[in-house]
Amino acid sequence: MFQSFENASAPQFGKARVGELRALLQELAIDGFLVPRADEYQGEYVPACAERLSWLTGFTGSAGVALVTMSEAIVFVDGRYTTQLAHQVDGSVFTGGDLVGAPPAKWIETHGPKGFRLGIDPWLHTAAEVRRLEKALVSVGGELVLLEANPLDAIWRDRPAEPLGRVSIQAANVSGLLAREKILDIANDLKKADAAAVLITDPSSVAWVFNIRGSDVPHTPHPLSRALVRADGSAEIFLDKRKTGIEEEAYLAQLATQKSPGSFAAALAAIAADGAKILIDPEVAPYALSRAIEAAGGVVIEAGDPAKLPRACKNTVEINGSAAAHLQDGAAMVEFLSWLDGQMPGSVSEIAAVTALENARRRVGEAMQNPLKDISFDTISGAGENAAIIHYRVTTDTDRLLNEGEMFLIDSGGQYVNGTTDITRTVAIGDVPYEQCRFFTLVLKGVIAISTARFPKGTRGVDLDPLARIALWKAGADYGHGTGHGVGSYLSVHEGPQRISRASQQELLPGMILSNEPGYYRPGAFGIRIENLLYVREAEDIEGGDQPMLGFETLTYCPIDRRLVVTALLNGEELRWLNDYHTRTRDMLMPLVRDPKAKEWLKAATQPLERVRHG
Amino acid sequence: MFQSFENASAPQFGKARVGELRALLQELAIDGFLVPRADEYQGEYVPACAERLSWLTGFTGSAGVALVTMSEAIVFVDGRYTTQLAHQVDGSVFTGGDLVGAPPAKWIETHGPKGFRLGIDPWLHTAAEVRRLEKALVSVGGELVLLEANPLDAIWRDRPAEPLGRVSIQAANVSGLLAREKILDIANDLKKADAAAVLITDPSSVAWVFNIRGSDVPHTPHPLSRALVRADGSAEIFLDKRKTGIEEEAYLAQLATQKSPGSFAAALAAIAADGAKILIDPEVAPYALSRAIEAAGGVVIEAGDPAKLPRACKNTVEINGSAAAHLQDGAAMVEFLSWLDGQMPGSVSEIAAVTALENARRRVGEAMQNPLKDISFDTISGAGENAAIIHYRVTTDTDRLLNEGEMFLIDSGGQYVNGTTDITRTVAIGDVPYEQCRFFTLVLKGVIAISTARFPKGTRGVDLDPLARIALWKAGADYGHGTGHGVGSYLSVHEGPQRISRASQQELLPGMILSNEPGYYRPGAFGIRIENLLYVREAEDIEGGDQPMLGFETLTYCPIDRRLVVTALLNGEELRWLNDYHTRTRDMLMPLVRDPKAKEWLKAATQPLERVRHG
Repeated sequence: MFQSFENASAPQFGKARVGELRALLQELAIDGFLVPRADEYQGEYVPACAERLSWLTGFTGSAGVALVTMSEAIVFVDGRYTTQLAHQVDGSVFTGGDLVGAPPAKWIETHGPKGFRLGIDPWLHTAAEVRRLEKALVSVGGELVLLEANPLDAIWRDRPAEPLGRVSIQAANVSGLLAREKILDIANDLKKADAAAVLITDPSSVAWVFNIRGSDVPHTPHPLSRALVRADGSAEIFLDKRKTGIEEEAYLAQLATQKSPGSFAAALAAIAADGAKILIDPEVAPYALSRAIEAAGGVVIEAGDPAKLPRACKNTVEINGSAAAHLQDGAAMVEFLSWLDGQMPGSVSEIAAVTALENARRRVGEAMQNPLKDISFDTISGAGENAAIIHYRVTTDTDRLLNEGEMFLIDSGGQYVNGTTDITRTVAIGDVPYEQCRFFTLVLKGVIAISTARFPKGTRGVDLDPLARIALWKAGADYGHGTGHGVGSYLSVHEGPQRISRASQQELLPGMILSNEPGYYRPGAFGIRIENLLYVREAEDIEGGDQPMLGFETLTYCPIDRRLVVTALLNGEELRWLNDYHTRTRDMLMPLVRDPKAKEWLKAATQPLERVRHG
Repeated sequence: MFQSFENASAPQFGKARVGELRALLQELAIDGFLVPRADEYQGEYVPACAERLSWLTGFTGSAGVALVTMSEAIVFVDGRYTTQLAHQVDGSVFTGGDLVGAPPAKWIETHGPKGFRLGIDPWLHTAAEVRRLEKALVSVGGELVLLEANPLDAIWRDRPAEPLGRVSIQAANVSGLLAREKILDIANDLKKADAAAVLITDPSSVAWVFNIRGSDVPHTPHPLSRALVRADGSAEIFLDKRKTGIEEEAYLAQLATQKSPGSFAAALAAIAADGAKILIDPEVAPYALSRAIEAAGGVVIEAGDPAKLPRACKNTVEINGSAAAHLQDGAAMVEFLSWLDGQMPGSVSEIAAVTALENARRRVGEAMQNPLKDISFDTISGAGENAAIIHYRVTTDTDRLLNEGEMFLIDSGGQYVNGTTDITRTVAIGDVPYEQCRFFTLVLKGVIAISTARFPKGTRGVDLDPLARIALWKAGADYGHGTGHGVGSYLSVHEGPQRISRASQQELLPGMILSNEPGYYRPGAFGIRIENLLYVREAEDIEGGDQPMLGFETLTYCPIDRRLVVTALLNGEELRWLNDYHTRTRDMLMPLVRDPKAKEWLKAATQPLERVRHG
């Protein structure tokens, strides 16, 4: 299994560890220290050796930061983690803070003692964060102290070693563009910007530029590494040689000089020594790197990660790979859903469902000789009221059966060499009450609105988000998350900058892969989410139109539970979309589904729904 | 008539006037001078004495700025005015610039000579503009020179006098809130902000705070004036006594000290002398005022105009007044449209239509003892291809007949003591081709989408804009303007901060009045716009919903041309909305329409359309 169901929290150690940390703060003559959940690479998943926040506090959520002073220890988390925090940390040691409304910088401004000296590990914070902290500290006459070493690492005696996951080459038949070409493009942009070099500090960007993948952290197949590309096209990659075999080293040697990660700051200093202009992304690069450049006499030019936008706009080979990966994944989903449908209500647990689904993905992957490399995130598997917890992660403590009359929500994805998938289906266990079916249908209307949208060039994520919500809004309801996130090509399942959300000013460009996942959650009762991935493409010419439009092509094919659809709530265009979607699903998945029972199930699950006059 | 149809441009004087200006620039030792279309009050309409841009160049558009240097004279305008500019200015003297893509600040950065000394009249530019100019000038080593007097005024020998339009009191039965209460609210906010006073420099804000109206500029009934409110609740209003009678002066004396406009800077200096903190809105206040405060030792605190948001959120009395004004205006529209329908195609001109409509508004106003005080803007009256010009203003040069088989677009509004109206109807002249009816119906779908929207608290204008466009987007079309602007209460027909547009981050709040005006324009062929005003209100409870929602209530009632509706393109909800709208229109307007023929017409124009199965 790629997923564990343990409650990994260990709140009992918090008291002693905070005590030890405070002793160190006194030695260092600082009044407080920040422990973010981030690692030196600012990725979504961090290796065990960088789980400092969880080690110190017991809190295992994916976002948060602790502020430890001599008198207080506050763990700042966002709304989805407030309940979890209360369960996971020792309440006699830690208090909770609001990461969104009153993050540490705000806390400093309002509660920070005069002259507050705050220590941070500059490898764990970006320049953008440092700026916010410095501004807050100025307001209380305080000071930011950049520590040479992380004090936590001195007291974390059994800290795991850094991961040494094997690196693989992402061949041209899946990447579609040679690393050499990508590097040359970046070098050309450097020349135009009159800069000497650019830092690539996001491991997903290194993976994309060099067409390599790794296995250092769960679920995101990038190798923890950094790179530096110069205007002359030469490059250096800072990637531990214990992660690369002879073949990968020979491959990389054609593109760059491979150096040890520890030599990065020194390499930077060498380039910076003659006052060179070096581009760096202040939103993703550790502040320690900006400091290293400036200390050596270089000039930091803040600019976006050069790989971010080209990585987001997938080429044809990547899109085709993703489409193939989605069909394979859809076949696995069909095997799983048909199996689930054959079980008695009250006989399958949330954990059993996760296990069955991962096994289906593994089985289909083996059969198709395109193995499941990883799941793309911990599966969210929630029945009844558990489905209402948006970021629910089932553990042995919370596991429950899928009971008669409930909806079951399962949000999961697979990592395949040719693509990353992410799909949510909400299915009926027995007879589901009408009111829940009504909301299921309203959510489905949102999915269809995005799927069928056409929009002019220049349209941003923020402009599409309301289309997915208006049916729910008219019913007096909404959902508390964005409508869609970007997805990588055998990379992170949460990839920027593309998003469909009220905060996204990023223009949608051809080739971008996004999720389309409206939902509805009634706390303590039920939860619904329907999620397909799709990509942006130029729409076919529209007769009578006067300008080219963009639109989406769906990647995810898997039946949407017909039993939950109230056809009277769908208009003609919506019902036609649903029936077309099911016809395509059947036609495309049937050849890939082996099990005769699953084939029968697929046929039944994709029958057209009857037209009902609405209104 | 409140509108003229002259082509007011006088391009023949440009050469001599630019010559005189250049001589003055030399005397003043500056290299260039900016002539914005703005006046000292930064309003949409400026009095004749402030039409400096038009006097100098001949260009009469509502937005633009000229930059005159010793060798160049550039008139920067936006896309809607490029053609007009070419017709109105002497091409041997002036060149055109792009006000949006490359405004003066940008021009300075890219073309500005080294050491460029740019003069401005600091009464005609806001602090925000000055900041942009200064930044640009720094980049070329230049300097901004704030001139004591506007050099143009020295050479404009027959410059009209400043207007002295009579001021009236806006009684409590239309304002709904006493000026004393408004002033106290502002004073309380000042105390909270620990500031001494706030400048109110937008004449519409002065009008709203003091419950007065004026007649200095066309179409917007605010008196050119400024005010100052202190934290202790005392206030000064800078309003020429020649504009006020005994009654108004007695009224104002209870609220404030009335002073001459020319004494404003001195009054500011007096308050500022002891280092007082004074709030000022950098987006609307002339830069000269910030300078006056700082020169006198005061501290400028930048903050939004204190009247802006309370003015936008109309109280119940204002909403009721607006609803009544709209019914009266709808009755006038019915008289006009029924008259138009009785004329032969090819017999009515665009100008004749404008005249007939204004006469209808005057007639109904007299009959209902609520006279038309002004039109709220120059009526846009365009037939056939003229309707495709979004900001078309008919002149004797462009006037044409409304011919058989064309659509005719008329966008107009009235100023009444109880409200400001703004309505667009596009109607058929004879038999209109199917393709145009199809686009009319797509535009109508946008109108209905906004009218029927429900949305949670926190929803911004940007979040609703796409709902009005999606039907057009799916047909490969769009429109190049926002979906809605804010509208005042017997004040400006273009009022901020509320808007429905892709740029609007302003949250929609109960009581805000907005236009809902999707359109479609095919250059050289036809143009469509349908516009109703509506206001934001708390929506009725929705059964099965879990949170309160906001929604719109329509203010404008007037038939939408049924002959242009392709019912097969409407879904059940849309057709129901249209028929309900027409039923309400008939029920509400019938008692107000006197003419028997118009009554017959109204009855026919509001008959329900047949349900057609779509899809």
